Amino acid sequence: MIFSDREQQEILGYLDLLRGEINAKLDEYTNFGSRCPKSLSEPMRYSLLSPGKRFRPILTLLACELSGRTRHHALPAACAIEMIHTYSLIHDDLPALDNDDLRRGQLTCHIKYDESSAILAGDALQCYAFEVLSKHVFPKDTAGRCVAVLPEACGPCELVGGQADDMAWKESGPPSLEFLESIHHRKTGSMILAGLRMGAIIGGASHLQYEKLEEYGRNYGLAFQITDDLLDWVGDEETTGKRVRKDKSQGKLTFPTFLGVEESRNRAHEKVKTACDALDMFKSDSIVYKSLVGMTQHLLDRRK
Amino acid sequence: MIFSDREQQEILGYLDLLRGEINAKLDEYTNFGSRCPKSLSEPMRYSLLSPGKRFRPILTLLACELSGRTRHHALPAACAIEMIHTYSLIHDDLPALDNDDLRRGQLTCHIKYDESSAILAGDALQCYAFEVLSKHVFPKDTAGRCVAVLPEACGPCELVGGQADDMAWKESGPPSLEFLESIHHRKTGSMILAGLRMGAIIGGASHLQYEKLEEYGRNYGLAFQITDDLLDWVGDEETTGKRVRKDKSQGKLTFPTFLGVEESRNRAHEKVKTACDALDMFKSDSIVYKSLVGMTQHLLDRRK
Repeated sequence: MIFSDREQQEILGYLDLLRGEINAKLDEYTNFGSRCPKSLSEPMRYSLLSPGKRFRPILTLLACELSGRTRHHALPAACAIEMIHTYSLIHDDLPALDNDDLRRGQLTCHIKYDESSAILAGDALQCYAFEVLSKHVFPKDTAGRCVAVLPEACGPCELVGGQADDMAWKESGPPSLEFLESIHHRKTGSMILAGLRMGAIIGGASHLQYEKLEEYGRNYGLAFQITDDLLDWVGDEETTGKRVRKDKSQGKLTFPTFLGVEESRNRAHEKVKTACDALDMFKSDSIVYKSLVGMTQHLLDRRK
Repeated sequence: MIFSDREQQEILGYLDLLRGEINAKLDEYTNFGSRCPKSLSEPMRYSLLSPGKRFRPILTLLACELSGRTRHHALPAACAIEMIHTYSLIHDDLPALDNDDLRRGQLTCHIKYDESSAILAGDALQCYAFEVLSKHVFPKDTAGRCVAVLPEACGPCELVGGQADDMAWKESGPPSLEFLESIHHRKTGSMILAGLRMGAIIGGASHLQYEKLEEYGRNYGLAFQITDDLLDWVGDEETTGKRVRKDKSQGKLTFPTFLGVEESRNRAHEKVKTACDALDMFKSDSIVYKSLVGMTQHLLDRRK
C-alpha cells in the first residue's frame, strides 16, 4: 500500500497522538506519591517514561479501535504491556544478563541507579502491570479475560523462556533457523500478540477479527525481530539509542547470522506483506487502518 | 488456648497433610515438560520445591475452610502465594540485595545455578503466579477478585516497596519503630493478608468473617516478623536453614534493635494473643480452627 506524502504526515501525526496519550497515562499511573518509596518509584519511572517507541501499546490501541471501541478503553491494557516490556528490558540489561549500559538513548537503569534498584524496579513494574489491568479495565469480565492473556505471554513458556533460551541456547543442541524463530516468537512475538489480543478483547472483536489480528501479530512480530537483528548489524548507536554490534560479539543467534543481510531483508519484506494482507478485512480509508499498515511498512525503514 | 498432647499431634498431622497437598500441587503446576527450557524450569523448581514451611499457603487453605468451602478450591491461590513468596526470596538473596548463600537449608538459587538463572527464575515465578490464579480459580468472577487482591499486595506500594525501604532505610530519615513496622507490614504482612483474603474470597466468607480474618492476619504478620527477627539474633543456622546474625552486621532495622530481646518477645506474645482473639467467631472443636490457633501459638516456640 502506497501512501501520499499527506497521508504519511497524517499517520505520523496520529501515531504521535497515541504515543502522547500512552506517555501521559504511564506518568499518571506511576505517580505514587508517598505510598511508594522514592528509591523504588524513581528507577521505575526513569525507565518507564524514557523515550521509547511505544509500538507495543500503540498496537493495543489500534487493535481496540479496529475492533470497534474507542481507544481510551484500551489505555490501561496498553500501559500494562509497556510496563511488562520495560521490566524485561531493565532485567535483560543487568550485568548478569546482557550487561548493557545504554538503552533508549540513556543510561540503563542499573548504571543510572544501582543493581538492586534495577532488580526491584523491574519486579515492581511486572507486578504493577497486573494491578493496572485488574483495576482499570472495564467491565470486570473483560478485565478477567485480559488477565488470562497477559501472564501466559510473559511467563516461563513465553517471554522469560525465550530469554532463558537466548542466554543458554548452546545447551539446547545445534542452532537452527526454526529454533531462532522460536526464541524470537517467545521473546518478542508473544508480547506483541498479547497486546493485540487484549486490544481485540477490549474492542469487542468478532472471532474472525480476533484471528486476523493474531495472524497480523505473528508476522509483525517476526518482521520486527528480523529488522531488530539487522539494526544491530548495520545501525548506529546514536540513532538506535542502544549499543550495536553486540549480538555478534556475544555469540547470539540472529537472522543475519543464518541468512545473511540481504536474505534477512527479503524475509522482513515478506513478513510485512503477509502481516498487512491479514488486515484486509479491516480495509478502509480510516486513519486507524492506515496507521496500522503504515507503521508495519515502516519496519522496513527502521533506523531505531 | 491450651491443647492436649493428642490435640497437638492432630494439629501437626493436619498441617503436614496440607503441606503435602500444597507441595504436590506446586510440583504439578511446574511440570512444564518441553514447553519451558530446562535452564529456566530447573532453578524455578529447585527453589519452589525446596523444603519451605509453607505457612503462607496453609493460611490460605485454612481461611477458605473456615469460610465454608473445602480447601481444594483454594489450592491454586495457595500455590500462587507460595510462588510469589519464592520469587521474592530468590531475588532478595541475590548479591546486589541481601547476598545470601543459604536458604531453607540449601544453597540459594544464584549459588546453585548462576545469577542470570536466578533473576529469570524469579521473574517467571512471579508471572506464573498470576497465570495459575487466572486459569485455575473457579468460578471466573472469583478468580477476578483474587487477581485484584494479589498484585497490589506484591506491588510497588507493598512487598517490593517494603524491600526497597529495607535496603535504603537510611535515606528515609532517622529510624523509628513505626517505620520498622511499616516495612515489615509491607514485606511480610501484605502477602500474609493477601493469602488470607484470597482464601476468604474463595471460601465465600461473609463481610464480618473477612474482616476478622484480616484482623487476624495483621497481627499474625507482625508476630511472625518479630519472631523472625528474634531468630536472627538467637537462632542457629542448622535449625533455621539460613544464615543468622546477618541483620546486625548489615545494619538492618529489627525489633530487637529497638526493643531488646525480652520486650520483643513480649510484643510477639501480645500479637499472637490478639490474632487468636480475632478468630473468636470461628471458635469450634474443628481441626481447622484448632490448627489455625495452634499454628499461631507455635510462632512463640519457633526454631526456624
